[in-house]
Amino acid sequence: MSDDAALLERRFRVMGRNAPLFYDRPVHLVRGHGVWVEDADGRRYLDVYNNVPHVGHCHPHVVEAIARQAATLNLHTRYLHETVVAYAERLTATFAEPLDAAVFTCSGTESNELALRLARYRSGGRGIIVSDFSYHGNSETLAAVTTCFPVPEPFPVFARKVPVPDPYRDRQGRDDGALGDLFAAKIAEAVRSLKAEGIPLAALLIDTLFANEGLPEPVPGYVAKAVAIVHEAGGQFICDEVQAGFGRTGDAMWGHQLSGVTPDIVTLGKPMGNGHPLAGVIAPAELIDSFGKAATYFNTFGGNPVSAAAGMAVLDVIEDEGLLENSRRVGAHVRAGLERLMARYPIIGNVRGRGLFFGIEIIADAGEKTPDPALTKRLVNMMRDRGVLLSRIGRYDNILKMRPPMVFTTADADLLLATLDNALAAL
Amino acid sequence: MSDDAALLERRFRVMGRNAPLFYDRPVHLVRGHGVWVEDADGRRYLDVYNNVPHVGHCHPHVVEAIARQAATLNLHTRYLHETVVAYAERLTATFAEPLDAAVFTCSGTESNELALRLARYRSGGRGIIVSDFSYHGNSETLAAVTTCFPVPEPFPVFARKVPVPDPYRDRQGRDDGALGDLFAAKIAEAVRSLKAEGIPLAALLIDTLFANEGLPEPVPGYVAKAVAIVHEAGGQFICDEVQAGFGRTGDAMWGHQLSGVTPDIVTLGKPMGNGHPLAGVIAPAELIDSFGKAATYFNTFGGNPVSAAAGMAVLDVIEDEGLLENSRRVGAHVRAGLERLMARYPIIGNVRGRGLFFGIEIIADAGEKTPDPALTKRLVNMMRDRGVLLSRIGRYDNILKMRPPMVFTTADADLLLATLDNALAAL
Repeated sequence: MSDDAALLERRFRVMGRNAPLFYDRPVHLVRGHGVWVEDADGRRYLDVYNNVPHVGHCHPHVVEAIARQAATLNLHTRYLHETVVAYAERLTATFAEPLDAAVFTCSGTESNELALRLARYRSGGRGIIVSDFSYHGNSETLAAVTTCFPVPEPFPVFARKVPVPDPYRDRQGRDDGALGDLFAAKIAEAVRSLKAEGIPLAALLIDTLFANEGLPEPVPGYVAKAVAIVHEAGGQFICDEVQAGFGRTGDAMWGHQLSGVTPDIVTLGKPMGNGHPLAGVIAPAELIDSFGKAATYFNTFGGNPVSAAAGMAVLDVIEDEGLLENSRRVGAHVRAGLERLMARYPIIGNVRGRGLFFGIEIIADAGEKTPDPALTKRLVNMMRDRGVLLSRIGRYDNILKMRPPMVFTTADADLLLATLDNALAAL
Repeated sequence: MSDDAALLERRFRVMGRNAPLFYDRPVHLVRGHGVWVEDADGRRYLDVYNNVPHVGHCHPHVVEAIARQAATLNLHTRYLHETVVAYAERLTATFAEPLDAAVFTCSGTESNELALRLARYRSGGRGIIVSDFSYHGNSETLAAVTTCFPVPEPFPVFARKVPVPDPYRDRQGRDDGALGDLFAAKIAEAVRSLKAEGIPLAALLIDTLFANEGLPEPVPGYVAKAVAIVHEAGGQFICDEVQAGFGRTGDAMWGHQLSGVTPDIVTLGKPMGNGHPLAGVIAPAELIDSFGKAATYFNTFGGNPVSAAAGMAVLDVIEDEGLLENSRRVGAHVRAGLERLMARYPIIGNVRGRGLFFGIEIIADAGEKTPDPALTKRLVNMMRDRGVLLSRIGRYDNILKMRPPMVFTTADADLLLATLDNALAAL
């Protein structure tokens, strides 16, 4: 047995005792391949959590691209380089007009910071609307508008939070139109409230998949209605694709495409470089040009040749291995399996998600839909002990979060479903 | 000839026309090795500018570490991993007590954002003092306190800017003590001004080498005096080591060690991963623990196994190749050569810097010390045409910025000096 306790103690000393760590018994990982990771004792785990290794842990095509470029040149974008331009061209080509230019950064945090600066520059306002159960980054401004976990910063006077519709709990007899209107009215209320305090709206910042909110089934038209109100108020719609992007949902390259609304600004992160710190902002060239003139925005590591090579290799693999189609097909297979489990286990309140991002809601009482976060936590740890890595999300922390690398197969899905069945039976 | 014009036009279209780019004729680089980079036409340039490839472009030890770890595992710090703990231990061991813990990030921006959050959390205040010619990052908060180039954001009500002493222009008969006191009084004035508006001080955020300010010769005791005032007001001293750190000055691993003052919080960036996006914050474990409890700070890419392996490899090379000693020795050689040039060319107002970070100030009139930014710009472009990459800094944009990779040799230095002589003679 490896001495994980000693490693943990050393970590506490030099990285702090409160740096986030998964599971009651932390996992000490040493290698990964495809959808599998292995701990220091040689035990293998099926990774049903990580979207950072988007095309699979240590995908050889991405590793080779990184290694080759790191050995050739790694500088910044104040010199010309072919790869970063070609990557920006290929990436922006996956977006609808007028989203035709890219600024590269190192993280979702940096992307959302830049998006807010762009939105405030364009709108002249400072007001920000976020969902009431969201997270968009760890900088001071983004931390302050975090609504899904406690932060020391006060919620800013320039921000408002709105609930997003979750049909499982909010429908209460309403049809889709009425449900969408109900929540759009809350956006309008937030705009009015900001205006009343003399704060013009700059942006609505949301993830249209509402991942942190717990992956609610989408209410048709809700996003379009909300964005119309935002545009009417002079604000920009910033779509955070850090979780939904790069084909995760199986039905589209970008989550916002499912809502039928083209954002004003899109932010990218986690899956973009398969683990290499690469992120970005997609916006109209006209906006980026105008802002760039006023702001001299420069990001030292953003879009360096190695990052661009990594990003390009990820796009290669998504295409070459048909990962959108895989996400759609395997996702549907998982969903059907989860629905079969729901029919057998009354603690599963519902099944949610699309493509390779799915969840089940754990409840204590089917009639009242009472969330059971303690049981959900126990289930997460039981799955870890059974060799499957996943986590939980949602307002009540009672939704299993399952978001495996995009190379997840139906065989992997069957192993997940069998293990989940086994854990549920053992509760 | 490669078609740089076409590449530039493509870049303008997808990355914006105002993304920063060096030189009147941008350089299209394709490979790098040691202190050399090569353009698409096979022309080689001596790199006297870049501190990102700190231990040399594409250093094989760092490349090998990145390639090996990228092929093994690349996840985040919510699992245990030996390398990131060992790297944190080795890195923090280079700092004086109580700087004994590390939080890893992806960029200097993220590091300074976290440092400000830590300082505000610890102090309970919001006030920030920066130098009046500085830059610490591209997030909205850090952009707003930028004082060395224009930004669209208004300078915040919670911030004050103070001039830093430059003996070349500010001495005016004062001895070191009087000069230090003069500028310390401006720190005290900033503290009072914040207090008068009900804004308690959170932090003084400076680079003790004052790189953007133009590398003024240090005024003995100035930093200690300023920090004493900041501490007295309940603020934290954040030292930005993004430019001065990792042995750059030759005389110490960290720039602040030359000032004899141990900061409360240190921020690291650019040179840390030799181009791999790696950065961090060093602070007392007690502060990080306390903040971590209140804030659940997590940085997805920060301190991932590949980043940690890159950082570790950089420390290996600094030690194995004696790069501190090299910086000190070659830096002294360059400085002597620059002083010989100054004796021959009256447009060189003075020579500044230490270790492998040095500058010469270009002036139009020796008596009045009139800065000549236009001539400086011309010189930068002439050096580029002669195969030497450098840039310019300082309040008047008239100081040649020379900051080569740390493997710069005396032969490289002689080439730089001869080329500079040639360019100066051709003016």
